[in-house]
Amino acid sequence: MPKIILNKTDTRAPKKLGKEEVKQRTQKLHYRLEELQNLLYAESKHALLVVLQGMDASGKDGVVKNVFDAVNPMGCRVVPFKKPTELEMKHDFLWRVHHQVPEKGMIHVFNRSHYEDVLIQRVHKWIDEKTVKQRFAHINNFEKLLIENGTVVLKFYLHVSKEEQLQRLQERMSDETKMWKYNEGDMKERQYWNQYMKAYEDVFANCSAASPWYIIPADQNWYKEYLIAQTVVSALEALKMKYPGMKSSS
Amino acid sequence: MPKIILNKTDTRAPKKLGKEEVKQRTQKLHYRLEELQNLLYAESKHALLVVLQGMDASGKDGVVKNVFDAVNPMGCRVVPFKKPTELEMKHDFLWRVHHQVPEKGMIHVFNRSHYEDVLIQRVHKWIDEKTVKQRFAHINNFEKLLIENGTVVLKFYLHVSKEEQLQRLQERMSDETKMWKYNEGDMKERQYWNQYMKAYEDVFANCSAASPWYIIPADQNWYKEYLIAQTVVSALEALKMKYPGMKSSS
Repeated sequence: MPKIILNKTDTRAPKKLGKEEVKQRTQKLHYRLEELQNLLYAESKHALLVVLQGMDASGKDGVVKNVFDAVNPMGCRVVPFKKPTELEMKHDFLWRVHHQVPEKGMIHVFNRSHYEDVLIQRVHKWIDEKTVKQRFAHINNFEKLLIENGTVVLKFYLHVSKEEQLQRLQERMSDETKMWKYNEGDMKERQYWNQYMKAYEDVFANCSAASPWYIIPADQNWYKEYLIAQTVVSALEALKMKYPGMKSSS
Repeated sequence: MPKIILNKTDTRAPKKLGKEEVKQRTQKLHYRLEELQNLLYAESKHALLVVLQGMDASGKDGVVKNVFDAVNPMGCRVVPFKKPTELEMKHDFLWRVHHQVPEKGMIHVFNRSHYEDVLIQRVHKWIDEKTVKQRFAHINNFEKLLIENGTVVLKFYLHVSKEEQLQRLQERMSDETKMWKYNEGDMKERQYWNQYMKAYEDVFANCSAASPWYIIPADQNWYKEYLIAQTVVSALEALKMKYPGMKSSS
């Protein structure tokens, strides 16, 4: 796979695509996703782990709300990863993550993930480059472990432009219903934009062996949601699941 | 409060209520619930714990799917309680439950709950009557602890008739998409119907001090879902929540 260069990668949908038509397709994908999730739960042979990564305001919460809202909440759990607790810091970086992976039958959506440990931590130089390399290897081994146990791992990078991000952060500051999401730190973190892009590019180059990264143009929510719904539906279709027959109690 | 006698309590909607009209009202409640959940999450001063109890096939899963599907999955987690693990059995009965209560900002829906420890365990005489009484007291203290920490506790008993239950269990045996839900044990457990009703009546009489039980006629899904949506919306409205202003990073 050629190396991904983010500032040469589109953040918007191809011009010829019509928003309304895409939205209709997304709606159909939602119905199919609901059926597939029910099958996943009933069959309980596989699990689905969705990893959402992206800069602040790249629309991770929106994917949760507008794509995974389609599925039965019984079979879907959203796991946000924030600043680790003191206890979590005393463990290896995968400890808190491993605990939260989906059991068979379930979909878990990671809102941020173990990748933060090679992103924010690297950008701020809280870890050295040797540790970064070690962590890439640990991440690959970890994802392989999950995959070999029947988990489908889908990793999405929400690719938003620096201009679009600024606009969204400013909107957070002025919209009463969004103000609570704004964090002073968001604007400071923007200064590290180029370092983040570089760190992400390294992640894609080093952590795509077991399960590939999907780079999702994310300046337009309707396109982002369509691509993610489509990718999730295709991945679940590929499992060729069937309703199991009667179970006996034992 | 007068003692609830379940076999004198309706399992169906009042005749004068029209199904289509009720469904429209439920739809409006869903939109309101979505807004309120967003406020709950943004404000993060309160949490909501919804406890669903009822006989097999009383429609607990249906409530999860058709009521809580309305909310953003980011702010809602469904927690099913099944047969305790060996480790859980070595702890007090509230240990595994306490771990799963919602933090501020969140809605957790318990599909079965700590009440099973005074229901199935009592009906099968796995615990003695002295233990039952002790557990009632522990449950009340536990719920008080949650309430005093800002959690709204809503407890629903889905009241289904014995005839309706039979019909639903038989449907599970014949519908390919539902077969996996059927468990041989369900039919056996039906033999204890009267003991269960008695045990539930005792729960309502003894565990309604801190937060009342809502007895929901559950033979018709549309009516059950309406009543629960309405109760949840009213409880959240009563919190008079507001969007918080800008947070400062620290």
